[in-house]
Amino acid sequence: MSEEVRLRPIAVVRGGRLEADDDEWGGVESTIVLDRRFPADALAGLDGFSHVEVVFVFDRVDPATVHVSARRPRGNPDWPEVGIFAQRAKARPNRIGLTTCEIVAVDGREVRVRGLDAIDGTPVLDLKPFMEEFAPRSEVREPAWARELMQHYW
Amino acid sequence: MSEEVRLRPIAVVRGGRLEADDDEWGGVESTIVLDRRFPADALAGLDGFSHVEVVFVFDRVDPATVHVSARRPRGNPDWPEVGIFAQRAKARPNRIGLTTCEIVAVDGREVRVRGLDAIDGTPVLDLKPFMEEFAPRSEVREPAWARELMQHYW
Repeated sequence: MSEEVRLRPIAVVRGGRLEADDDEWGGVESTIVLDRRFPADALAGLDGFSHVEVVFVFDRVDPATVHVSARRPRGNPDWPEVGIFAQRAKARPNRIGLTTCEIVAVDGREVRVRGLDAIDGTPVLDLKPFMEEFAPRSEVREPAWARELMQHYW
Repeated sequence: MSEEVRLRPIAVVRGGRLEADDDEWGGVESTIVLDRRFPADALAGLDGFSHVEVVFVFDRVDPATVHVSARRPRGNPDWPEVGIFAQRAKARPNRIGLTTCEIVAVDGREVRVRGLDAIDGTPVLDLKPFMEEFAPRSEVREPAWARELMQHYW
């Protein structure tokens, strides 16, 4: 297996929630503040896109609680046991989070976003503009438990 | 700014292309092989989804070539100068790649995928099942250069 990868956060999440709740993230607004080692023009043109993909670290998850095998999402007995890579739970190897958010505004080194499910202080590893061409190009299928879990998420 | 983040690849890409070409990734098939430190049931239930989001490292990009400000995508003079976080170029800080692929098959610790734009040997940091609910929930807008660039990508 490949060697360790060392990354340095490029930005931090400010505002929004102070604690990670399970649901109702859709209306949450927060600001992604780019590190000062980058010039402001690292964000030039991002306002031409409606959405941004945010790659972040669930840094408040205790690494000792990370799951590596199968479990029921949210411990719900109505849902099947699925592997950690078949669910998006945050207690996962490498603790990486990934969400496509609506861009509210880009101002200097700051990106205001809506619907980012990462709490205040979360380190951000990358920002990518959402291009429709990167969405699935064939029919999407997902199990019933996933649709049920997501029902109140936003 | 938050401290360094140390990650350990969870899997590696096998097969597919040996070198990174710009375009025509759509038909490329490759296999994501999970590291042996994980039990095979870490992938249990992934076959209930049609697509998987793959977070990987562009490890063949020389860190000295990484861009941090604005440049024309692919150096094309017809396109505007945009910041590194307003494009998906691989010579980017932290060298993280992110693509949603079609799942062809899941077998033990292996996931066969179609349309992964990562070459043979690429380290993988995370796999997440694609849920339609994580797609943009408001109208998508992107600039003309992005649509032109993506025209022959798949």
